[in-house]
Amino acid sequence: MTQRLSPAQVTALGMGPMGRAIAAAFLAAGHPTTVWNRTAGKADELLARGAVWADSPLAALDAAEVVNVCVIDANAVDAVLDRALAESGRSRLPATTLVNLTSEGPGRTRELAARADGLGVHYLDGSIMTPAAVIGTEATRILYSGPAALFDRHRHTLAALGGAAVHLGDDPGRAASFDVALLNLFWTSIAGLMHSFALAARQNVPATALAPHAQQMAGLVADLLPGLAADIDAGRFSGAESASLTSVTASLDHIVHALEETGVSSAVTRAAKNAVDTAVSAGHGGDSAARLAEFLSRGHTNRGPQAAG
Amino acid sequence: MTQRLSPAQVTALGMGPMGRAIAAAFLAAGHPTTVWNRTAGKADELLARGAVWADSPLAALDAAEVVNVCVIDANAVDAVLDRALAESGRSRLPATTLVNLTSEGPGRTRELAARADGLGVHYLDGSIMTPAAVIGTEATRILYSGPAALFDRHRHTLAALGGAAVHLGDDPGRAASFDVALLNLFWTSIAGLMHSFALAARQNVPATALAPHAQQMAGLVADLLPGLAADIDAGRFSGAESASLTSVTASLDHIVHALEETGVSSAVTRAAKNAVDTAVSAGHGGDSAARLAEFLSRGHTNRGPQAAG
Ligand SMILES: NC(=O)c1ccc[n+]([C@@H]2O[C@H](COP(=O)([O-])OP(=O)(O)OC[C@H]3O[C@@H](n4cnc5c(N)ncnc54)[C@H](OP(=O)(O)O)[C@@H]3O)[C@@H](O)[C@H]2O)c1
Ligand SMILES: NC(=O)c1ccc[n+]([C@@H]2O[C@H](COP(=O)([O-])OP(=O)(O)OC[C@H]3O[C@@H](n4cnc5c(N)ncnc54)[C@H](OP(=O)(O)O)[C@@H]3O)[C@@H](O)[C@H]2O)c1
Repeated sequence: MTQRLSPAQVTALGMGPMGRAIAAAFLAAGHPTTVWNRTAGKADELLARGAVWADSPLAALDAAEVVNVCVIDANAVDAVLDRALAESGRSRLPATTLVNLTSEGPGRTRELAARADGLGVHYLDGSIMTPAAVIGTEATRILYSGPAALFDRHRHTLAALGGAAVHLGDDPGRAASFDVALLNLFWTSIAGLMHSFALAARQNVPATALAPHAQQMAGLVADLLPGLAADIDAGRFSGAESASLTSVTASLDHIVHALEETGVSSAVTRAAKNAVDTAVSAGHGGDSAARLAEFLSRGHTNRGPQAAG
Repeated sequence: MTQRLSPAQVTALGMGPMGRAIAAAFLAAGHPTTVWNRTAGKADELLARGAVWADSPLAALDAAEVVNVCVIDANAVDAVLDRALAESGRSRLPATTLVNLTSEGPGRTRELAARADGLGVHYLDGSIMTPAAVIGTEATRILYSGPAALFDRHRHTLAALGGAAVHLGDDPGRAASFDVALLNLFWTSIAGLMHSFALAARQNVPATALAPHAQQMAGLVADLLPGLAADIDAGRFSGAESASLTSVTASLDHIVHALEETGVSSAVTRAAKNAVDTAVSAGHGGDSAARLAEFLSRGHTNRGPQAAG
C-alpha cells in the first residue's frame, strides 16, 4: 500500500460532545487519531477505542497531517494556538492543515485564518450543520471554505465525518456566513419551540401531546421554505393569496397574550411581532412573510421589543 | 336520496385568503355554499363557481346548517355577530352551528363560545394548522374542540376541508390552547428564517442559495422534536452527550454579532439568547435545550432583551 492510500494521521482538539463525535468518526474510519483537550479525562472512552492522548497542543499539531479543532468559539481556538506557540518558543507552528470545525462568525473566522497563515499553518474552515449524534453517518452536513486545493487534498480524509461535504469557495469566512444564517434559523426555531412547550405545559398539554402537531408545523416551515426563498429573490411579496403580515400580527397578538396570561416569557414572540409590526407600519401589511426578509435586509432596526406592547 | 345524504348547506363568512379557500373546498365537495364578507367584491371568483352571496350576516347564518367563520380575530367574529343581532332586532340568532375557524387564544375563544351559547348558536371551534393553499387537499390539518356530539354531527361535512381533523375535547378553548403553542413555533421560526435570509443577503448569499441548507435545518428541528418532547416529559435534561446551553449561548453570541455587523435587527435572536442566558445563570449551563422548556414553564421572566448585550 502506498503512503497515499493509507489512512491519514489525524488529530482532534477539543473533547466537547462534537469534538468527541469527530474523533470517534475518524477512529471508526481507521485513521490513527490523536486527541487533546484542555481538561483531561474527557477522552477516556476514545482512548479505550484506540485514540492516542497528546500531552500538549503542540504535540497534537505535530502528530498529524489533518488537525481538526472543535472548541466552543474562536477565542478558544486562539487559546489553543497560544499554548502551542508558548510551548514551541517560536513564532511558527508545524506546517500542518488546521481544519477548524468550531462555530464562529465570518469576521472572527477570517481573523483566525489570517493568524493561522501567519503561523505557517494551512487553514480550512468547516461549519457543522448537524448534531453530534449523527457525525460519521450519512446524515452529516458540513460546509467548508478556504483554499479549494486544500479542501481537495483532504476531502478523502474528511469523508470519515460522513454525509455531505460542500465547499463554498476560497474565502475562509464563507462557510461561517452560511453558518450564522443557518444557526440563527435553528436556534430561534428551537427557542420558539421551547416557549411553545412551556406554553403548552401551562395549559396542561404535555410536550409529547403537542409534539406530533409541532413536528408537522416544523415540517411546514421546511416545505414552505423554497417557495419563500424564490419569492424573496424574485421580489414577489404579495400576501393576497397566502397570508398577509396584517393577519400575522393579529395571530402574534393573541399568542403574546396567551404567553403573558400563563406566565411564560413573551420576549421572543414580542420581538418577532415587533419585526412584523415595523414592516406593517412601513406599509407592507398586505404583503406575505417573504417581505420581512427584504425589509430586514434594508437594515431597518425595529422599534425595540419594549414598544411591541 | 334522503336529506341526510345530500350535501349539507354551508356558509362561509370571511373572504380573506383562508375564508376563500374554505368556501372553495366546500364548493368543490358539492356543498351548496353561501358566502359573505364585510367588504364586497372579494368573493367574485367563488360566485362564478356557484357560491351564493348573502346580503347580510343574518341571511348567511339563516342559509345553512354549518356556518363557518374565518376572519382575522375574535373581535371580528364578534363584529359579525353584532351585525346579525342588530339586523334581527332580537337577542337570539338562528339555531345553526357556528364553526369558528378563526385563530384566537383560548381565553377569547371560550368567551366567544359562551356568547354563542347565549345567542342560541351551537359553537364548535377549529384551528387550522396548514396554509390556505392546501385547504381541500390531504395536507390539511385542523384541530377542533367543543361538544363531541356536535363535532360528530358535522365531521362528514367538515371533511370537505380535507386531510386530518382531530377533535381535542369538549372544552371549546382546547384547540386554541394547541393553536397558540403551534403558531408560536411557526411564527418564531418564520421570523427567524426571515432574519436569516436578510443576514445572508447582507453577506451576498441569495435566499435561494441558502434555501437548501436552511430547509435541512428546518427538517432537523422536525427530526429532533419528538426526542426533545420525550426528554421534557421525562425530565431528562443533560446536555453532556448533545449540546449544552453554555455552548448554545456562545453560538448565539456570534450570530448576534454577525447580525449587528451587517445591520440586520438582532432583536429576535437577542431575545432567544436572553432566554438561554437566564437559564445558564440559574445553573443550567450543562443542560440541553430541553431544559429551556421546563425552565420557561416555571414562569421565570427573563431579564429583558436590553440586558442581553
Ligand atoms: N454539539 C453539537 O451538536 C454541535 C452541532 C453543531 C456545531 N457544534 C459546534 O461545535 C463546537 C464544539 O461544540 P461542543 O458541543 O463539542 O462543545 P462546546 O461546549 O461548544 O465546547 C467545549 C469544548 O471547548 C473547549 N474549550 C472551551 N474554552 C476553551 C479554551 N479557552 N481553551 C481551550 N479549550 C476550550 C472545552 O474544553 P474543556 O473540556 O477544557 O472545557 C471543550 O473541549 C461549537 O462551536 C459548537 O457550536 C456543536
Ligand atoms: N392564510 C392562511 O394561510 C392561514 C393559515 C392558518 C390560519 N389562518 C387564520 O385564518 C383566519 C383568516 O385568515 P385569512 O388569511 O383569511 O385573512 P385575515 O387577513 O386574517 O382576515 C381577513 C378577513 O377578516 C375580515 N375582517 C377583519 N376585520 C373584520 C371585522 N371587524 N368585521 C368583519 N370582518 C372582518 C376581513 O374582511 P374584509 O375583507 O372586509 O377586510 C376578511 O374577510 C385568521 O385567523 C388566520 O390566522 C390563516
